[in-house]
Amino acid sequence: MTLDQLCLHTITTKPWSLEEAIDHYQSAGVGGISVWQNAIEAMGAEAAGRRLRASGLDVVSYVRGGFFPSVESKARQQAIDDNKRLLDEAAAIGAPLLVLVCGAEPRQPLSESRKQIQTGIEAVLPHAKELGVRLGIEPLHPMYADTRSAVNTLGQANDMAEAIDHDHVGVVVDVYHLWWDPELEQQIRRCGTAGHLFAYHICDWRVPTTDLLLDRELMGEGCIPLSQIRQWVRDAGFQGYEEVEVFSSRYWEMDQQEFLNKITKAYQDYVHKAKR
Amino acid sequence: MTLDQLCLHTITTKPWSLEEAIDHYQSAGVGGISVWQNAIEAMGAEAAGRRLRASGLDVVSYVRGGFFPSVESKARQQAIDDNKRLLDEAAAIGAPLLVLVCGAEPRQPLSESRKQIQTGIEAVLPHAKELGVRLGIEPLHPMYADTRSAVNTLGQANDMAEAIDHDHVGVVVDVYHLWWDPELEQQIRRCGTAGHLFAYHICDWRVPTTDLLLDRELMGEGCIPLSQIRQWVRDAGFQGYEEVEVFSSRYWEMDQQEFLNKITKAYQDYVHKAKR
Repeated sequence: MTLDQLCLHTITTKPWSLEEAIDHYQSAGVGGISVWQNAIEAMGAEAAGRRLRASGLDVVSYVRGGFFPSVESKARQQAIDDNKRLLDEAAAIGAPLLVLVCGAEPRQPLSESRKQIQTGIEAVLPHAKELGVRLGIEPLHPMYADTRSAVNTLGQANDMAEAIDHDHVGVVVDVYHLWWDPELEQQIRRCGTAGHLFAYHICDWRVPTTDLLLDRELMGEGCIPLSQIRQWVRDAGFQGYEEVEVFSSRYWEMDQQEFLNKITKAYQDYVHKAKR
Repeated sequence: MTLDQLCLHTITTKPWSLEEAIDHYQSAGVGGISVWQNAIEAMGAEAAGRRLRASGLDVVSYVRGGFFPSVESKARQQAIDDNKRLLDEAAAIGAPLLVLVCGAEPRQPLSESRKQIQTGIEAVLPHAKELGVRLGIEPLHPMYADTRSAVNTLGQANDMAEAIDHDHVGVVVDVYHLWWDPELEQQIRRCGTAGHLFAYHICDWRVPTTDLLLDRELMGEGCIPLSQIRQWVRDAGFQGYEEVEVFSSRYWEMDQQEFLNKITKAYQDYVHKAKR
């Protein structure tokens, strides 16, 4: 089976440098790469862009902007400036999409944080359009509503994308954050119909999960109904990459080439199972 | 300030035996007690009932039934039998409510688990009615959707209570599980209007939370908008106990009398703040 439609997030193989990740992904036949900020810090965006363009990998997204809310207006302005810089970096590495982890401020209501997120996105939008980089609102699991994101369901992300109503703003569907939501099918259909389903992230929910952040599983090893969600995403007209984004202390401790073999195997099994 | 409307869950002061909990709660002036199963295991339900009736404490609920879903029909029947026994125990200790942690089966879709939950509740309902013990469906945070509960929003709990449509079936609102939900206000109003808001649990969400289960906070120490939610619950007509349910390895390591002092202080501050 071809891995043309498979994309890996550099964070998934965190112990590797960007250059190691590029080499190994290419050798494995992986089609795309989503680049995390930490992966280009050492060499800078320009050099990373040259290296990525020289590779055969498609740059799918740059991860991650956002974190707009704060009780201090100065901090909110700083976040806007930071996001403009991240958009510059996204353009420099050739990424057509900046993924937004929107942020939350525990000292204020979630509704207030959501207003600040929308204001922040609208403030950076002209810059995004000028660069031709789209913005993807990624709803995060409700267990991250304290600090990481005040947008916790696909319904809320769709609401925000529709309120902003701009062809450079859409949503990112990540099965890890959304699998439990009884409204998921209808909300995937909604963003597909609106043409703003920009990216699709896959992994699995480990049973039992022992850490709130760093205990994600590979597809097929957990309890997420992946075939079902994949079908909804395809029925919604999405034809982009399937992006594997796994944070896992356990897997980062493994030999990363061995882990990459497990990832491509898990991806193939997942596609095969979904096609049955 | 009186503590008449304050109820403590025995699990909150887990290191104490039931008798120690009763004595200390009474001395502190606490009005109610919600009894966990583990607290009566040593002495049995009948003896626990005698001890509770001899105390001045109001028995608010028995915790916890549920865990209905399974891929095996035999295990589902076992869960129904277990819940009937738990209802007997609830009646024996004088609890008017059995709280249901509904359960989830990671090997099947959440929708299937929800069907099995409803079937399970309907199967024990005649026994509950006969005993005069009500059943409270407690929606659990989506981070527990793998094994603990396929009911993860108050909207879903309300749907199920309305589908069953029986005066002995209602819902339990716990701020820890529900605070992030953008539909919370309207769903609290909905169960209040329907007359099936049976219980109200309070605590707080620690920032950052380091454990998925045992890292709850005392009211006022976390990021949950408690005054806001309390107002919604009161506006919905709820006049019952405010039940403090905290699982916390950190607090269980403290001297429990010192912890109890912290709880009553946190409760008083919470009520005072909400009244401003």
